[in-house]
Amino acid sequence: MSVDYAQLAVPGVRQLQPYVPGKPIEEVARELGMAPESIVKLASNENPLGPSPKVLKAIANAQSDLTRYPDSNGFNLKSALCAHLNVAFDQITLGNGSNDVLDLLARAFVAPGSEVVFSQYAFIVYPIVTQAVGGKAVVVPAREWGHDLDAMAKVVNEKTAMVFLANPNNPTGTCFSRRELVKFLEQVPKRVIVVLDEAYFEYVGGEDYPNGLLLQQDFPNLVVCRTFSKAYGLAGLRVGYSVASPVITDLLNRVRQPFNVNSIALAAAEAALEDQAYLAKACQINHEGMMQITSAFNALGISYIPSKGNFITADFGENAGSINQQLLQRGVIVRPVANYGMAHHLRISIGLPEENEQFIEALKQTL
Amino acid sequence: MSVDYAQLAVPGVRQLQPYVPGKPIEEVARELGMAPESIVKLASNENPLGPSPKVLKAIANAQSDLTRYPDSNGFNLKSALCAHLNVAFDQITLGNGSNDVLDLLARAFVAPGSEVVFSQYAFIVYPIVTQAVGGKAVVVPAREWGHDLDAMAKVVNEKTAMVFLANPNNPTGTCFSRRELVKFLEQVPKRVIVVLDEAYFEYVGGEDYPNGLLLQQDFPNLVVCRTFSKAYGLAGLRVGYSVASPVITDLLNRVRQPFNVNSIALAAAEAALEDQAYLAKACQINHEGMMQITSAFNALGISYIPSKGNFITADFGENAGSINQQLLQRGVIVRPVANYGMAHHLRISIGLPEENEQFIEALKQTL
Repeated sequence: MSVDYAQLAVPGVRQLQPYVPGKPIEEVARELGMAPESIVKLASNENPLGPSPKVLKAIANAQSDLTRYPDSNGFNLKSALCAHLNVAFDQITLGNGSNDVLDLLARAFVAPGSEVVFSQYAFIVYPIVTQAVGGKAVVVPAREWGHDLDAMAKVVNEKTAMVFLANPNNPTGTCFSRRELVKFLEQVPKRVIVVLDEAYFEYVGGEDYPNGLLLQQDFPNLVVCRTFSKAYGLAGLRVGYSVASPVITDLLNRVRQPFNVNSIALAAAEAALEDQAYLAKACQINHEGMMQITSAFNALGISYIPSKGNFITADFGENAGSINQQLLQRGVIVRPVANYGMAHHLRISIGLPEENEQFIEALKQTL
Repeated sequence: MSVDYAQLAVPGVRQLQPYVPGKPIEEVARELGMAPESIVKLASNENPLGPSPKVLKAIANAQSDLTRYPDSNGFNLKSALCAHLNVAFDQITLGNGSNDVLDLLARAFVAPGSEVVFSQYAFIVYPIVTQAVGGKAVVVPAREWGHDLDAMAKVVNEKTAMVFLANPNNPTGTCFSRRELVKFLEQVPKRVIVVLDEAYFEYVGGEDYPNGLLLQQDFPNLVVCRTFSKAYGLAGLRVGYSVASPVITDLLNRVRQPFNVNSIALAAAEAALEDQAYLAKACQINHEGMMQITSAFNALGISYIPSKGNFITADFGENAGSINQQLLQRGVIVRPVANYGMAHHLRISIGLPEENEQFIEALKQTL
């Protein structure tokens, strides 16, 4: 008698849909028979600048140690983060990307059957990590593509273990204000863990944009997640972190795999944190690229969701799927977001000026 | 009213004891005020050779891509593994070290309350990943420090979801034979996932030592885990993998974080797999180092558990703790294994000849 191993999996895992990443350049090149150099990838909200020279130097220095296990405690990187963020060592949990930290949070606090609240169109990793532990996703309809925090507060009940908030949100780029966030936190019981995902924090400025770390004194249930994958330009190396109260941090570190961040990633992230000039340049390039692409959208009469991130999501109507295919044929990889329930939209990451131009030209030819 | 966040954690996590890694050289240097160069670390079963030049070259080539996300599908590394191991692409799951794969297996197949069987003195990650998902550990007493496979088969019942076997086992270095393994697999129902951890596979030779991959045709419930952290010398980069039936592999890949292995690690592991000369040298150095240390033990009248791995665990009686401290003072880091219930033993990783000599000298002075 043959065994159906899929039926042996725990219930949450059995129904899990895997994350679908942006198409790698190599894969598109293989599929279309194109030269990889002729392809531009604006699909994964990556930093188009390439790595900082200071990061490359740190990687070179870390190479002699790579037969040794990484520092499980991440002493040097965590110390640098403490100084940079003005938080305590025992508040930081390092992750293999912030995806890892989001996963650890669900594993630590969400029991099978517990409810997890997040917004329609929110980052797709929230439903995935919820499902993987058998939690029940409570999806709150969005308001103008963004979080409806009032409605989210209303669905929190005694079964709610966790709320995920993304500010800005991916893939919509929407932000909520400090005032809105504080009002939300005041309505939610302190026993509910509120995860504030600030993956795109460094791109956003302005008086009104809240820094989650400054709210943790009043709201010990607030966990802030950030990453080195976006503005710091280390997506390939996988380093993210959370800042939380020491008790929460202790729990996350128990679930955490002891060597979850590798030696080279630890060294690179420490160097990236020091290179604030690189960060400033990345934000400037992003700002200019955002103007370049939204100007083109305006000229072409394409409507888009105003974005605070390093990407812009635009409405191409019923032709979105075919436009995506035609862009691919012209060597431009953007991101379909039908899996977010946004079949009419495409998400375009902001690239270098010439990459943005290649996208705009390909789009003009396509339309 | 203040909230006790530790009480909000899921039951398994609340009781989780974190993994205690070997002390890093830097930490011992800081604590004892010694120069890091004067310290030898024989505590974490690492490859003492340092990285292969081919690996360093591959890392240099991968650096330009590090602002891009890694290939989520690990196409190049998995293709290389397929060719090397003669298995199919859809049998391989890549992990952030084999720790990650062990964790994925527990998450995919062990529901809260399910039983997980492993041996007394088995690798401590098995109880950790079991506890983290709320599984019930069933620990079977060891026989001569190794797995008592007959006794393990007897405790398997309808509640058993998974069995972990390590061959060789860490920290005892013991092995079971092909005949014993097949007999065990024949006794266990096919609906029980049997995880065969072959982290030290490459060090072991001999007719009698089973290659788990050759048994998977007859036993589709057998999952084989291996790693690049030991003989391939990439502990700092975190690459492990499992080989299993496609259905099991599909489930593991759903739970897997999409970018769990970073770009540099993918490139390095592919290069390491190609450098079989490095591997042969690592095994030869290990073989000679094992002779060097066991000869010294024999001369000093210290009893040890014969080991097939890249480490040796010896019995220092009631003085083990104080001997460990004195070795540390002399700049030699070895591994206490009291957390395995082996308070009289210390585990010594095999180093380079001069490192082994430094250990032997420090031990002589201590005794």
